[in-house]
Amino acid sequence: MKRRVGIVGFRGYSGAELLRILKRHRHVEVWLLEHRSESDEPPRIRGESRPPHLPLSAEAVREHRLALVFLATPPEVSLELAPSLLEAGARVIDLSGAFRLRLPETYRRWYRSEHTQAQLLAEAVYGLPEFYRDRIRQARLVANPGCYPTAASLAIRPLIEAGVVDRYAGIVCDAKSGVSGAGRKPTLRTSFCEVTENLSAYSILEHRHVPEILLNCELEEGELSFTAQLVPLDRGILETIYFRGLEVSGPEMLLKLYEQRYAQEPFIRLYEPGQTPDLHAVRHTNFCDLGVVFDAGTGRGVVVAAIDNLVKGAAGQAVQNMNLMLGFPETEALL
Amino acid sequence: MKRRVGIVGFRGYSGAELLRILKRHRHVEVWLLEHRSESDEPPRIRGESRPPHLPLSAEAVREHRLALVFLATPPEVSLELAPSLLEAGARVIDLSGAFRLRLPETYRRWYRSEHTQAQLLAEAVYGLPEFYRDRIRQARLVANPGCYPTAASLAIRPLIEAGVVDRYAGIVCDAKSGVSGAGRKPTLRTSFCEVTENLSAYSILEHRHVPEILLNCELEEGELSFTAQLVPLDRGILETIYFRGLEVSGPEMLLKLYEQRYAQEPFIRLYEPGQTPDLHAVRHTNFCDLGVVFDAGTGRGVVVAAIDNLVKGAAGQAVQNMNLMLGFPETEALL
Amino acid sequence: MKRRVGIVGFRGYSGAELLRILKRHRHVEVWLLEHRSESDEPPRIRGESRPPHLPLSAEAVREHRLALVFLATPPEVSLELAPSLLEAGARVIDLSGAFRLRLPETYRRWYRSEHTQAQLLAEAVYGLPEFYRDRIRQARLVANPGCYPTAASLAIRPLIEAGVVDRYAGIVCDAKSGVSGAGRKPTLRTSFCEVTENLSAYSILEHRHVPEILLNCELEEGELSFTAQLVPLDRGILETIYFRGLEVSGPEMLLKLYEQRYAQEPFIRLYEPGQTPDLHAVRHTNFCDLGVVFDAGTGRGVVVAAIDNLVKGAAGQAVQNMNLMLGFPETEALL
Amino acid sequence: MKRRVGIVGFRGYSGAELLRILKRHRHVEVWLLEHRSESDEPPRIRGESRPPHLPLSAEAVREHRLALVFLATPPEVSLELAPSLLEAGARVIDLSGAFRLRLPETYRRWYRSEHTQAQLLAEAVYGLPEFYRDRIRQARLVANPGCYPTAASLAIRPLIEAGVVDRYAGIVCDAKSGVSGAGRKPTLRTSFCEVTENLSAYSILEHRHVPEILLNCELEEGELSFTAQLVPLDRGILETIYFRGLEVSGPEMLLKLYEQRYAQEPFIRLYEPGQTPDLHAVRHTNFCDLGVVFDAGTGRGVVVAAIDNLVKGAAGQAVQNMNLMLGFPETEALL
Repeated sequence: MKRRVGIVGFRGYSGAELLRILKRHRHVEVWLLEHRSESDEPPRIRGESRPPHLPLSAEAVREHRLALVFLATPPEVSLELAPSLLEAGARVIDLSGAFRLRLPETYRRWYRSEHTQAQLLAEAVYGLPEFYRDRIRQARLVANPGCYPTAASLAIRPLIEAGVVDRYAGIVCDAKSGVSGAGRKPTLRTSFCEVTENLSAYSILEHRHVPEILLNCELEEGELSFTAQLVPLDRGILETIYFRGLEVSGPEMLLKLYEQRYAQEPFIRLYEPGQTPDLHAVRHTNFCDLGVVFDAGTGRGVVVAAIDNLVKGAAGQAVQNMNLMLGFPETEALL
Repeated sequence: MKRRVGIVGFRGYSGAELLRILKRHRHVEVWLLEHRSESDEPPRIRGESRPPHLPLSAEAVREHRLALVFLATPPEVSLELAPSLLEAGARVIDLSGAFRLRLPETYRRWYRSEHTQAQLLAEAVYGLPEFYRDRIRQARLVANPGCYPTAASLAIRPLIEAGVVDRYAGIVCDAKSGVSGAGRKPTLRTSFCEVTENLSAYSILEHRHVPEILLNCELEEGELSFTAQLVPLDRGILETIYFRGLEVSGPEMLLKLYEQRYAQEPFIRLYEPGQTPDLHAVRHTNFCDLGVVFDAGTGRGVVVAAIDNLVKGAAGQAVQNMNLMLGFPETEALL
Repeated sequence: MKRRVGIVGFRGYSGAELLRILKRHRHVEVWLLEHRSESDEPPRIRGESRPPHLPLSAEAVREHRLALVFLATPPEVSLELAPSLLEAGARVIDLSGAFRLRLPETYRRWYRSEHTQAQLLAEAVYGLPEFYRDRIRQARLVANPGCYPTAASLAIRPLIEAGVVDRYAGIVCDAKSGVSGAGRKPTLRTSFCEVTENLSAYSILEHRHVPEILLNCELEEGELSFTAQLVPLDRGILETIYFRGLEVSGPEMLLKLYEQRYAQEPFIRLYEPGQTPDLHAVRHTNFCDLGVVFDAGTGRGVVVAAIDNLVKGAAGQAVQNMNLMLGFPETEALL
Repeated sequence: MKRRVGIVGFRGYSGAELLRILKRHRHVEVWLLEHRSESDEPPRIRGESRPPHLPLSAEAVREHRLALVFLATPPEVSLELAPSLLEAGARVIDLSGAFRLRLPETYRRWYRSEHTQAQLLAEAVYGLPEFYRDRIRQARLVANPGCYPTAASLAIRPLIEAGVVDRYAGIVCDAKSGVSGAGRKPTLRTSFCEVTENLSAYSILEHRHVPEILLNCELEEGELSFTAQLVPLDRGILETIYFRGLEVSGPEMLLKLYEQRYAQEPFIRLYEPGQTPDLHAVRHTNFCDLGVVFDAGTGRGVVVAAIDNLVKGAAGQAVQNMNLMLGFPETEALL
């Protein structure tokens, strides 16, 4: 029998992607939870069926026995909705940044607003299966990772764990993202004429995704320089990560580290030494692709990581987390 | 009276841009030097006049008294053409990489081919007016800088000169370029369907523009990590440059360094502290825009540099060099 | 001595383009008229000078003796501002649709709102110089044409005048426009992710630009089918116009009609028979390019017209009109 | 047990799309038939498995008992390969134009080359399932339709059959296509810098897809004006089709015609009256979406048809045909 799951925020890009992915899922049935109405309905296809809609309320969730609810909402909305959904008996996967950091004061600093649910913040499990799989299985509330930290953490943490990075020299993560990462709400910054034939850096050294990377990789703030760039394309994140190696013999050695770390991982792919992924390799997939370049003469290393920001960087990873939480095969609907 | 100048390679993107710019120039008359025929003529506009054409030969150059010839050709073609054009009495601005490095062995390493004109290589002046203005005025042969090194050198050299960069930690230059930088010759890599909705890194740590930056900034190879990325847009280069500062109090201090260094420069623009340029700010202009972010707490600095790769990164800078060489106002046709 | 002209709406795409063009103009000095404040200021370049600002008021216009004011504003704002600016002694070029139609009832039908200035509507001159040059010179108030009607009217009217179109079969004008035509205000419809890799038709058979074309070409509504399409590019309009010819021998005959009609026109360019313009040919120019295909065997004809919607379709044409009104050379700042 | 099918031309865009679709197919196993080697291999992912490769030969096809071979090759290559593959016992679906027309002389006129397989041309079945389903089931050789004719025929034929089109006034089909329709071979015309921010019409009134539409819809050449336009996007075709209606009461009446004609069709979708599809609605799907606008006052009608040129316009339709030929459910791997 199929389990019922709900989506709040199904009109946004992450929510719509969730819906697309879950249509292929053999073990769940999707309900759309109507949070706010919208006027910009797309043209209607005759006779097309849509998933059932429900008003968003604790009662509806309880009455229809939703096993799990995805929150594809801004952090302030997630903060407001999560408690009652949990109380109504649903497990929750939140795609916003509301529950990703550990301490209210860290949240306050990076999100410039108070965190009103300190207890849930402490309880929430960070939903990066490659690192926290067992805890995710048991979690009531999962904080789905940010798109940038997903790629960055998967690329950086194995190097830190193996001690092959010169932490004084520091790590530079230069990230480039397609525009869907900024959400569906119209803004001048994401309007076509401002983005096309353009390229711009933003949140230089102070992006709110930085503390997630620091937590996942056990880095100090001074050890990581992170800059995001907005690129004229729809979906995809490419991160070019620079570091100085410690006793690294060459790219093969680094690839072996990754191979060992990710031996059983269904969604990590590695490239031959000196080869690196582009965005076409990962779009519409849940893969995180990693490629390594290393110059043994000078000790400089570069790792390139690529994901689809709406899949492994959001909805796909959320489904991967749901699969773990509800006991389905981890790759269901994702391969 | 107008001086006559010739363009070889006027069908390529840099050559066509040269033609566009020189049409606005009040002191020169352009002649197109026909190097090889092409079949892909654009649709013809009735009654449209074009600049006069000449076969490319030393005799034609001499007979028509061309004062200067631009070579918008691949390096191997420039190597072949430059000697006879100089002999024919023309001064030469070469937009390729043929004469940018100083030693034949450096050329051999990065261009993977022999340099056949060692004497001209030694004679050639590197055409970055902000650094070598006086020598450019006198030069017979100017090597117009590469697009990436133009932005990178203008951003990095003042920091190195002032001694505010921790050279052990090293400088990372993450460069992103529009597709016109790859030239007009059709290749799979630059075809629309491969580029659109894509992003890829290439020549990681081994781009042939690297030695130009090292020379201009007096850096060792191990002190600079440079990666280029191909971005789905036509024209523009954005470089995000990371370093660890030495005794830097904040962005204002760095901006002052730039202001002093570039006080008289007509084509360098600086942004307010914490603000950085995007590509729209510079497209179709000869400006190099620089913006600075610095975190005093951790000592991490970021400079963002933006140019139009076909203007300040190629044809515009070539005209700037021509203006210096032929004694015209330096900004003629460029503002 | 330079004449002073003002721009209202200088932050929109047409207004900004006006400013760009007028910076090159040798006979005018631009004043920016501050209509409403905006929060989305671009990054600031140090030391950059901007044109002088004024509060928008009749007094300011009178006091600073502005000879002419451009309204780059929505029609309802133009309706409100035009009367007092005219009273203050300025001539007015309105880039909106407020004064393009002749009768209040036509305006009501297509703009779905009342026209509050019937007298000015009657007085206004339609600013398509190729057809109404003499009246424009004398006008107090010029209604700058819509972008689509500019290209369509220039392409269609000579054919209608010459009687070579089968009006029963009708004319089809399939128009495609870049996104800047929709203005700078952020909307979902013009946001990057909705536009990129997409194409959509809108206002099929009922676009509010239709009555302008009908008026200019003396067509009945049933004789013209017009559809607009939104294309993932910044600027440019391409119109493909289909008709059945009456006693047309071939494309040469049609080209001759255009050549006679536009013999003295500086901004109309014609292509060789069978060749048609693309958008690159006209971008950033004030040209309207026309190309003709005709199949004598079946009598089917196609005309392709291309303009830059922000130049000949808006700001460039407005400057052309200003040049006529203020007695400057018609092509000043436009070639 | 799975049936074996082969793909020739698997590196092209249609061939690669075939491979992507067939990976989801439950009843076939794909073999790649190596026709010519290529140097532009993409970066290699470690440990990734690829479908088995075979040299392309009649023996290999016979020996490995391939039930069917897809030819994703240019027409001249298909002409050369089809006979021996059929002789080797495989059924063939050809994605080129080699076998789409009925008469060698029609082929000669539109393809400007001789047809060397007149007998196969006569035998081949045109693979548009909505019109020729029964014959496709039995066919040895199926000519997969062109991308433009697929959308155009599905939109136009029901109107012609119902007699609601004024054939004297004629039908205008203004077609816009993404760049992947031009194939993967690098050309100047499809290179990024030529396509981006551009739009151009080509093959005006003489596109080689025209005769397919005429055949499918039983139109005379003089009754159809067809123009193709190249749009800066990767995949998708939008066709705007104009006609004068005969005794048409409104859009509902036209939609009813389509509903009756396509009642059982799994891949045709209709929109509510006055609403029309965009490309996002169909990308990566095998649907052909149709929307209708009709102005009863003047009798002018517009139909907008949208498909993904690589799916319903090529590989998806080829799989639909294969499903019919091999007795699988028609929608297998396509929904």
